[in-house]
Amino acid sequence: MFLRRSLATLSSLPPTVRQLLAPGTPSSSAPIQVHGWVRSVRRQKRVAFAVVSDGSSTEGLQAVFPDPSLVDSLSKGCAVKLTGVLVDSPGAGQAKELQVQAVDVVGECDPEEYPMNKREMNVDYLRDHCHLRTRTNHMAAIVRLRDSTIRTLQDYFTTLGFTYAHTPLIVSNDCEGAGETFRVLAPSEVPPTSTAKQASSSSSAAQDNGKPPEHFFGRPAYLTVSSQLHLEALATSLSRVYTISPCFRAERSQTGRHLSEFWMLEAEWAFTNKVDDVCQVVEGAVKQALSQSNLDLQLLRNELPESRLEAFEKAASAEPWTRITYTDAIRELEKAQSASKVFKYDPIWGSPLRSEHERWIAEQVANGPAFVTDYPTELKPFYMRLNDDGKTVACFDLLVPHLGELVGGSLREERMASLRKGMKREGLDAGSYDWYLDLRKFGGAPHGGFGLGFERLMSWMTGVENVRECIPMPRWAGRMLL
Amino acid sequence: MFLRRSLATLSSLPPTVRQLLAPGTPSSSAPIQVHGWVRSVRRQKRVAFAVVSDGSSTEGLQAVFPDPSLVDSLSKGCAVKLTGVLVDSPGAGQAKELQVQAVDVVGECDPEEYPMNKREMNVDYLRDHCHLRTRTNHMAAIVRLRDSTIRTLQDYFTTLGFTYAHTPLIVSNDCEGAGETFRVLAPSEVPPTSTAKQASSSSSAAQDNGKPPEHFFGRPAYLTVSSQLHLEALATSLSRVYTISPCFRAERSQTGRHLSEFWMLEAEWAFTNKVDDVCQVVEGAVKQALSQSNLDLQLLRNELPESRLEAFEKAASAEPWTRITYTDAIRELEKAQSASKVFKYDPIWGSPLRSEHERWIAEQVANGPAFVTDYPTELKPFYMRLNDDGKTVACFDLLVPHLGELVGGSLREERMASLRKGMKREGLDAGSYDWYLDLRKFGGAPHGGFGLGFERLMSWMTGVENVRECIPMPRWAGRMLL
Repeated sequence: MFLRRSLATLSSLPPTVRQLLAPGTPSSSAPIQVHGWVRSVRRQKRVAFAVVSDGSSTEGLQAVFPDPSLVDSLSKGCAVKLTGVLVDSPGAGQAKELQVQAVDVVGECDPEEYPMNKREMNVDYLRDHCHLRTRTNHMAAIVRLRDSTIRTLQDYFTTLGFTYAHTPLIVSNDCEGAGETFRVLAPSEVPPTSTAKQASSSSSAAQDNGKPPEHFFGRPAYLTVSSQLHLEALATSLSRVYTISPCFRAERSQTGRHLSEFWMLEAEWAFTNKVDDVCQVVEGAVKQALSQSNLDLQLLRNELPESRLEAFEKAASAEPWTRITYTDAIRELEKAQSASKVFKYDPIWGSPLRSEHERWIAEQVANGPAFVTDYPTELKPFYMRLNDDGKTVACFDLLVPHLGELVGGSLREERMASLRKGMKREGLDAGSYDWYLDLRKFGGAPHGGFGLGFERLMSWMTGVENVRECIPMPRWAGRMLL
Repeated sequence: MFLRRSLATLSSLPPTVRQLLAPGTPSSSAPIQVHGWVRSVRRQKRVAFAVVSDGSSTEGLQAVFPDPSLVDSLSKGCAVKLTGVLVDSPGAGQAKELQVQAVDVVGECDPEEYPMNKREMNVDYLRDHCHLRTRTNHMAAIVRLRDSTIRTLQDYFTTLGFTYAHTPLIVSNDCEGAGETFRVLAPSEVPPTSTAKQASSSSSAAQDNGKPPEHFFGRPAYLTVSSQLHLEALATSLSRVYTISPCFRAERSQTGRHLSEFWMLEAEWAFTNKVDDVCQVVEGAVKQALSQSNLDLQLLRNELPESRLEAFEKAASAEPWTRITYTDAIRELEKAQSASKVFKYDPIWGSPLRSEHERWIAEQVANGPAFVTDYPTELKPFYMRLNDDGKTVACFDLLVPHLGELVGGSLREERMASLRKGMKREGLDAGSYDWYLDLRKFGGAPHGGFGLGFERLMSWMTGVENVRECIPMPRWAGRMLL
């Protein structure tokens, strides 16, 4: 700890607004310098005020100007260096304030032209100004909450003996087999039609003879849709591994729960043989994330009804979450449907749960998060472990109120014959999965794992409805700014 | 802390070998279960021994079998569950051992067929068995060291008030302008020639009419080569941001320092206006990483000469690292060249430093890490801040012995006229950088940042010469297994 401190002070960075406003920070007698952007200015006859934010906290620093002419050069959005003394604030609303002695505008901002100086900025306007929208208090809070949530989850997995591992993003297979996988091409592989602008580049000359260019990696390359298979290889040597990694799906669906590029927390571990045990690790992780208490989460939940806040508190408590098999869930849905026709789609054993079914299970059956386990084999990918009944697999989806599916996981099939059957069912070419079969052939232990959509977690935790607002620079079909 | 503990115990995971061997773990009176893979078996007349590893530590657990027949079913690589009592070890070499009462083989491994059961496995063989090579103690140590290094760096940046942010991987621009950028295509954009196997897929039918397909994102999409520009947008609202993110370059160079997919630590922060300050943050971060003390680092450095270990210690000490301008560095190189023609290539002001020059500066001039600052404008990208001399930019490369360039950084040009001139010089289309110019137009503060190649840091810290051994599943031109 001593070492860490001494190295931190090696750095020449001045304190942030968050650090200055932290309880216990002493008032300064010597002048200090504060940097930030002006949020608002208020000029009176004998004194002026401004709120300055540096994005380190939801809170801005109140700056008091005994000489009101000092604020003449200030406008919303301009970057400033203020020199002054940090004192206890006599006013309500803040513990400290800066008595400003000198003002230095280091980046001007014309209030007439500034796109973030509008009274009304709806969600579409902010998406169109993606490069500026983290200047809103709301969006900045999302970015900071992502950070604190990731560190919370990392601490949790480290405590449990997991190793954080990087799996490749460019891969040779399509793990989920859903046909929504992006292709990756080197400049030399790009066909001339799609490189109109680069036509003269020497690197694309190779294909002018009509022959298809050679693959850069010696075979077709894709962007990963899930790190699972690669994590399984690592779990067969390191026992417990997890990653927080980008995943990519070329989906055209324009729902509030889908992005073309999203982050996923995925974990895999060896020597587990009960779905219940996998669920328990998931439940611990999500409860850990929910137990955070910070200004960002408070700000984001500001407009949620009391009932949702209570639901979060209950979900974070020690009380275990509901677990119900797919078969029992279908029975509950059928009962509700025949009693009062609550669903547009009839629930049928063997069919996927619809969104309306998923939410109803979480909201009406469980009144909170619910693990639905043991889905029919046909509904799930080849790698999930077949149950003794021969019809279902040892898997779960975690469904939560207002959102639906947050996590999916399973035991993985470690028995060679069963695994080959699953691959055949899905029409996979066993040859390109030789390495995956090797993991079973040589010391393959029973194992399991899960994947959690990180933007969905953010969305659920904060009540921010669309995942496009849960990541600073979202990508979806038709949209990629920056 | 109480909450964290209580949630961790919520999980049903048994202790790992690392946890069992940690100093202070009490001996058990009740039997415990230990899972892992057999590293070695040694059978004597009245007793047998095995070493079992679960990949959580460089150390395996010594298992003692009072009934030697218990090891009959064991062979190298098989996965086992051992039931026994953890006791203080009477033997040398380990503090604890497991007195085994029952053995359960949960995953067999035929020693005749097992690819990792060879006496000699050179680096190429292990690369060819990428899915199994983390089963070697050496490669597993790399994966664990990546984890601990990342968490160390995250702690450092969190302490300094930085927010960890995710920037997009799919982007619309080529930040470095080096023409080595991978293209990303949705299935509907892939030309028929490169999808022979998928020709019948409905999603590629769109282009059969001869028209080029529409871009999935409405414009061409690339894989990011650096997160810098996007981090700059975030730094203009959150002040201090960093990321640890995959980057991609379609390089054909087959050196020990290049990968097609690698991880980069990048940080950007506002309100800095001296290259020296940026260097200081970098120096603090790298020293923090070097100050780790763990079994993984010890194992990996095992065969390094004493002189290199001393050099690491010196580099991690409080003593500041060398800083020298490019101009002075050229002068030193010229002196050495004219005195004794040590270089293949003459050092010339205005030309890039060659690898031989870089290493000579670190090894001979600095005898340790060296920041070389203020390179000629023409050698650096458009976004670096022009110095008052009009010929150099406010930038640095951090050069280290045995490796060369580890980090590159700079102040970023915040003055609109200067920035536009730089973009023109590089032939960039200002239109597609409108958002980047906006960051200057509206409250643009002086700012700077850097990028550190994470695999290069691993390589330098450990003495593992090739970055292909510093990431579990490497990708380079012609190579993508799994």
